[in-house]
Order: sequence, then structure tokens, then C-alpha cells
Amino acid sequence: MKRSLKRGRRLSSEKRVEWVLVMNVMIDICIVPLGVGVSVSKYIAACQRVLDDAQLAHEMHAYGTNVEGDWDRVMAAVKRCHEVVHQMGAPRITTSMRLGTRTDREQTMDDKIQSVKLKLASE
Amino acid sequence: MKRSLKRGRRLSSEKRVEWVLVMNVMIDICIVPLGVGVSVSKYIAACQRVLDDAQLAHEMHAYGTNVEGDWDRVMAAVKRCHEVVHQMGAPRITTSMRLGTRTDREQTMDDKIQSVKLKLASE
Amino acid sequence: MKRSLKRGRRLSSEKRVEWVLVMNVMIDICIVPLGVGVSVSKYIAACQRVLDDAQLAHEMHAYGTNVEGDWDRVMAAVKRCHEVVHQMGAPRITTSMRLGTRTDREQTMDDKIQSVKLKLASE
Amino acid sequence: MKRSLKRGRRLSSEKRVEWVLVMNVMIDICIVPLGVGVSVSKYIAACQRVLDDAQLAHEMHAYGTNVEGDWDRVMAAVKRCHEVVHQMGAPRITTSMRLGTRTDREQTMDDKIQSVKLKLASE
Repeated sequence: MKRSLKRGRRLSSEKRVEWVLVMNVMIDICIVPLGVGVSVSKYIAACQRVLDDAQLAHEMHAYGTNVEGDWDRVMAAVKRCHEVVHQMGAPRITTSMRLGTRTDREQTMDDKIQSVKLKLASE
Repeated sequence: MKRSLKRGRRLSSEKRVEWVLVMNVMIDICIVPLGVGVSVSKYIAACQRVLDDAQLAHEMHAYGTNVEGDWDRVMAAVKRCHEVVHQMGAPRITTSMRLGTRTDREQTMDDKIQSVKLKLASE
Repeated sequence: MKRSLKRGRRLSSEKRVEWVLVMNVMIDICIVPLGVGVSVSKYIAACQRVLDDAQLAHEMHAYGTNVEGDWDRVMAAVKRCHEVVHQMGAPRITTSMRLGTRTDREQTMDDKIQSVKLKLASE
Repeated sequence: MKRSLKRGRRLSSEKRVEWVLVMNVMIDICIVPLGVGVSVSKYIAACQRVLDDAQLAHEMHAYGTNVEGDWDRVMAAVKRCHEVVHQMGAPRITTSMRLGTRTDREQTMDDKIQSVKLKLASE
């Protein structure tokens, strides 16, 4: 399940090498606040700022947002989005999310799109 | 539930006016073929062509594709995508989809993105 | 992409045999009305009645409903759910849905659950 | 955004009381391993054991599993599922998930289903 295996810092006191497993994830997330009327753009804007603050690569589209990065950092940002939207007054939130992980190779959001475009162009 | 109410053709034999309800939908769709290995870009490319052929507004992102238009035409294209991906050899498909409809006003894919960007810019 | 190939009715006037392709689908659907407050159970109840009326096999769970049957009949019911929920007063709906099709074999909702339970029991 | 506010441990060295916010979440998750053929039930069974081990309330249905509990514990189990499925040999995983949080009241998986059934029965 490792995306990449990074050699950890040598801890002198313990004289051992710690291996840290890093699992990257690409998500597509659509956060829907309930009980606040039909206009939800200000809540989505607040979540964009959460992702900016988290310094995670992200790209909004018309029905959600792609985010990629280390699993724990991405999921911490998702939790923060729920917290922020509740703090803004939404009593209920329902989110739909896709989560993709792979161990065979690294692949960014751009790689995925380019891969399809190459297929389309080669015809 | 109508997005727009269009007057249907007057059917002379029946001397009546037929009202046709048109419901627009915006979807975000991610089609996942199973049993064909990990590389799925050629199947996604085939679905892009289905959407082109259907002359539906669509925009691919890194974890799915936005499509908008008349409900029946959009859903016919979704069905066609499943048919085409099966015909290409995938024995099983699992798709995740969001579907948005609204009766309060017209809103395109661009409108949704602009609405959030305006909120972000006005701070 | 056919799940089963059924011989159509012989149309005497045209002296031909029509083959009808039937593609079954299993979906999991979660319909979320916006602009109607946080309590959405009456809208979900209305959708259950739509599925009953459509005589489709369906099973509600705590975060959605499984439905299985012929693609066109299932999708017609999904559209009807959106129409009904709008007619009940919801100006906006966002639905999340999974759609599964397979050509390798028939598999009901119960089959899928039993398959996992068998794996769990055999340990 | 708190579901319940629990008093944290008093940290003697800092002479302060730490308040820990606990946010419950209900999810519906469908984990799809890619690159391992069409039969995925053994991977789903492994995830059921992860949820058992995590001692989280969960209920499988034909197209996913409902899980409820503290946000961090639920999300740790989701991560563990991805890790386990990769360790079993799946090079790629795509998961679709719904996540619901609410601050207005407590609501279990059973509550949600009962609420709809009551509406249906009262007609």
C-alpha cells in the first residue's frame, strides 16, 4: 500500500532506521450543506480556502473538487471542511467523495487527464 | 420540476396540445471498468467520444466528467457509455455519479464555478 | 452488454423478428433535496413509493437505497423520483448514485451479500 | 460542529483544561479494487473484518457498507481498508463514499431508516 517508501530519520537514541510508509490519495469531493437554502457557493468557497491553507494540490470543477496528496493530510483537510461548514451555520452536511490510491506507480491529476487525451488524439 | 415548459407539436388527429416537460440535469460521472487491468484510460476515451457524438456539453477532470443537458439525452449517453465499455471487453462496470437538477433557475457548469470564484475574489 | 437476449414479438406486418437487448443494472441511490431544511425523510418516503409503484426490487439502508432491474425501468424511476421531489417543493436536488452492470453473469442484491458472507464464514 | 463535547484530561504541567471536540460521522462506503479481476468479494470480506476489529457499528448492503462513529476512528478504518486491500495484491483502488455529519441532533443508522418507515406507515 505504499506509494513510496521513504527512509526515515535515523534516531540516534534508538540506533534504528524507521521506514515511513506514505500513501498518496487522489480524491474528488462534493460537500453539500443542508438546512441553509439552495445557494451553497459561499460554503464551497470556504472549503477552497481550507485546501489552500493546507497547501494541497486541488482543482475545482462544476460538480466537485479534485485534491491530491498524502492520505493523512488530505483527510485532515476534508475533516476541516466539515468543521468549517458547520461553524458557518450548516446544521447538516452530506458529502460525496471518490478516493483513489495505487501502488503500481505515481500518477498526478494532470497525468490522468493527459492519458485520456493521448488516447483521443491517437485516433 | 420543469426547467422549461415547451409547447409540443399540435397533433391534428387528436386536436390537442401536448405539453412537454424538459428537465435539465448536470451530472458528474466516473465509469470504472472491472476485469480489464489497472489502465482504464482507453475506456474513458471511448466514453468521451460517446459524449461528443451525443453533442452534450461535457468537461473531463482528473476523477470524472461533468455533463449537462436534457435529462433523457444525458441518461441515454450514460447508458451508451456502459454499452460501449462492455462491448470493448469489460465484463463488469461500476460507475459513480452525481446528478443535480433545479427548478429555481438555469445554471450551467461555468455558472457554478464562477459563483464560487466570485465569492473567493470578493474577500 | 446484453444481460440476456430475449426474442421479441414477431411483428406479422413486417415479417421480421426483433431482438431486444436487455441490460440489467444495480444502483445505489441517495437523493438529497436542498432548500427544504434538514429533515428529508418525507422526500425519501415519497421515493420509496415511486420504487414500489415501478415494481422494482429495492432495499433501503441508512444512507441510500439499492434498486435492481432493467436499465430503462430503473432509470425511469430515478427520473420520476427527481420529478416527485421537485413537485413536493424542493427547488434543488443533488443525488449520488452508484451503477453496476455486468455481462459475465446474473447477480442479484442478495447474491452480492451472500458472496461476502460466505467468504467471512469460511475462515 | 461538535456532536458532543468531552472534557479532556487535565494536563498538570500546563494547568489548563483541554476540551476535545468529537464529531461523529455516518458513511456509506464502496471499495473497488482494480487489477484483480471481476470477483471482489474476498476484498470486501477483508474490509468487513477491519470494521469488526475497529469495533465500529457497520452494516453491509448490496452496494456498499454503512459505518458510523467518531470521525477519526471511522476514517482510520477507511485508511486501513485501503492498506489491507493493497496488501492483498490490488495495485489500484477506487472508493466511493458518502459522509454525513450533523450538529443539530444525534441520529443513528437505525434512526434514519425508522424515520422514513414512519412516514410510509402514516399514510
